[in-house]
Amino acid sequence: MFERMTESPSRVEAFSDGVFAIAITLLILEIRVPHGDHDLWAGLVALWPSYIAFVMSFAVILIMWINHHELLRLVRGVNYPFLFANGLLLLTVTFVPYPTAVLAQNLATPDAKVAVAFYCATFVAQAVCWNLLFATIVRGGLLRQEVTAESVSNVRRAYYLGVLVYAAATALAFVRPVLGLLLNISLWVVWIRLGYRAESSAVRR
Amino acid sequence: MFERMTESPSRVEAFSDGVFAIAITLLILEIRVPHGDHDLWAGLVALWPSYIAFVMSFAVILIMWINHHELLRLVRGVNYPFLFANGLLLLTVTFVPYPTAVLAQNLATPDAKVAVAFYCATFVAQAVCWNLLFATIVRGGLLRQEVTAESVSNVRRAYYLGVLVYAAATALAFVRPVLGLLLNISLWVVWIRLGYRAESSAVRR
Amino acid sequence: MFERMTESPSRVEAFSDGVFAIAITLLILEIRVPHGDHDLWAGLVALWPSYIAFVMSFAVILIMWINHHELLRLVRGVNYPFLFANGLLLLTVTFVPYPTAVLAQNLATPDAKVAVAFYCATFVAQAVCWNLLFATIVRGGLLRQEVTAESVSNVRRAYYLGVLVYAAATALAFVRPVLGLLLNISLWVVWIRLGYRAESSAVRR
Amino acid sequence: MFERMTESPSRVEAFSDGVFAIAITLLILEIRVPHGDHDLWAGLVALWPSYIAFVMSFAVILIMWINHHELLRLVRGVNYPFLFANGLLLLTVTFVPYPTAVLAQNLATPDAKVAVAFYCATFVAQAVCWNLLFATIVRGGLLRQEVTAESVSNVRRAYYLGVLVYAAATALAFVRPVLGLLLNISLWVVWIRLGYRAESSAVRR
Repeated sequence: MFERMTESPSRVEAFSDGVFAIAITLLILEIRVPHGDHDLWAGLVALWPSYIAFVMSFAVILIMWINHHELLRLVRGVNYPFLFANGLLLLTVTFVPYPTAVLAQNLATPDAKVAVAFYCATFVAQAVCWNLLFATIVRGGLLRQEVTAESVSNVRRAYYLGVLVYAAATALAFVRPVLGLLLNISLWVVWIRLGYRAESSAVRR
Repeated sequence: MFERMTESPSRVEAFSDGVFAIAITLLILEIRVPHGDHDLWAGLVALWPSYIAFVMSFAVILIMWINHHELLRLVRGVNYPFLFANGLLLLTVTFVPYPTAVLAQNLATPDAKVAVAFYCATFVAQAVCWNLLFATIVRGGLLRQEVTAESVSNVRRAYYLGVLVYAAATALAFVRPVLGLLLNISLWVVWIRLGYRAESSAVRR
Repeated sequence: MFERMTESPSRVEAFSDGVFAIAITLLILEIRVPHGDHDLWAGLVALWPSYIAFVMSFAVILIMWINHHELLRLVRGVNYPFLFANGLLLLTVTFVPYPTAVLAQNLATPDAKVAVAFYCATFVAQAVCWNLLFATIVRGGLLRQEVTAESVSNVRRAYYLGVLVYAAATALAFVRPVLGLLLNISLWVVWIRLGYRAESSAVRR
Repeated sequence: MFERMTESPSRVEAFSDGVFAIAITLLILEIRVPHGDHDLWAGLVALWPSYIAFVMSFAVILIMWINHHELLRLVRGVNYPFLFANGLLLLTVTFVPYPTAVLAQNLATPDAKVAVAFYCATFVAQAVCWNLLFATIVRGGLLRQEVTAESVSNVRRAYYLGVLVYAAATALAFVRPVLGLLLNISLWVVWIRLGYRAESSAVRR
């Protein structure tokens, strides 16, 4: 057990970085070149839901990547449960291009409610995985000694909050899809601020 | 010859990691956004075979990546035959998105038997490649000195078992596709447990 | 604040490299295999706009990757604003395959004007992001001490120039699309020469 | 100038590895799941040209990656011309999935001649780029001191041979496409053996 904990997280970090980088770059494949009778300009403009979905998902994956980076700075080693909890989180990251495409193709249609709810529900699942990963880290004793109890509870509170707010955004989407999306986006601030705080209380590697 | 054996496996490791990370992330591209007359919700639900296929293939590639990692921890260097045996294994990894798509699009149809058999047969081929890679490692004298004969026979036994069970799953798929899939999944436990054992008897790098 | 500045840019560099490498490799997916009644040779030849678009975008992403590399050699550490400014730049990089596909499919049609303008406008946005990133670096005090004021003003001037020339190319595209494209390409020389100069005045890492 | 030559090739190596890994993994996207009236088994069998094309291109990219690795072991540093010559080579690598798809979809049709010729012509271009890259290395004085003149002429001869044989395969394809493909494949032996020889005369890093 002990030797696992002292194994450096560098290779799992590199693998995770690869998955984040690929997922973020695949998003563009979902935007299809406009075809049809109308002129190109109108076609490009008509794709505004695709651009919104692209930018939103790009931003959230970028923020998640930064947070993943900050989280791993708190960790002094990895064990087997960590690898699987991290894998589960990556599964929800690689899944993102799909709800993004669903959102893009339905945001301007009567199906917008379902599309936004599906999009937000993906992040409920992802937020649950962040909690799971953090619980795995804490239970496995993988945190660096310098990480204070305050840091731990800060991170934990933010991760709980994530699940709740994403769930609320999902519910809201069925009534007011635009508000659901805005609530979804509002969490970016939490994740960005969380990263800052985790960082200042952590040591440098 | 000698100098090859002392070459570090780090670059082949990075390349392999890249291939695993890309293959695992490409899986999502096979899930197509639902179109048609029925509402979006029904369309999303009707894609359940795609979600099952996605999760199954994600899990197996993740586990294979972890096992690849563990296997390379037993190795003190690489030679030319290793590079090609490893490349053959990666070929079967990059192939996975295709049988996954075949499975996704046929699991709910009368063609399910063929689709599951094709999916399982892919892993027969992959299991053969694991055996080939391990034989290349052992014959080339690439194992670290600390690796015990017991470790070697543990790994070898598990790899043999993999071929047999995947072959059985392929055969079973023609009769009962669901049971074939479940047998296929049951091997995850073997791979996960194998990793554990290899790890505890290996030294830290 | 201080500890952030001394954090090494290596992980953000690896992530950025991954995004550049993936974006440059995805370009080929936009070229579709010709189908139809005419023979294959004619079909392959008829895709000349795709080849032009592919080569142009490949070249520009390659050059941008080299410049990103050179820029980060001037930097001694990264902070949070840097991560987001860099992320914004990467967003415009991952976006490139889309205007490339638009260009490829419309270069030989009456819509060429709009397609070229859209293509060039993408690089206006990207040039703005380079300015933003550099401003973030300078304001955050992230430059290495050895970087001279002359280097800084060289880079800044080239980045300003980029915005202006790309904007001119966009405007020109509405009148003469071919000239717009050529003006766009002419900037490659600026970026390549910029890299040279930044490099000779920077220290080795 | 001097400081460039002593810069380590590690980052360009990592970027190149990324491009090789992505290109090799994207190949699978070109194999489409069979649809239609006939049963799935017949559909899977009918895709044999896709499997052949997939395996051929996978093998050649793998071998090229290994050779790139070996080539860079001869190099003590990189300069600007190297970066662009290497970029040009990577352009031909990322292009491979396209002729592969063309080959897959036309190998069993009367257009096989054109498809094989197009496929082989891609490797003529790639072989020219290997020559260009090597010339850039030699002229720039980037070779390690330990690399003997014999090694250099070995590599050069093999690279010349590559251009000639690929050109011959292209010409042959118009008459006998199957022989053209076989001649194309026969070069794998040259590349594999070249790697061996370069390796034994190079020093370890």
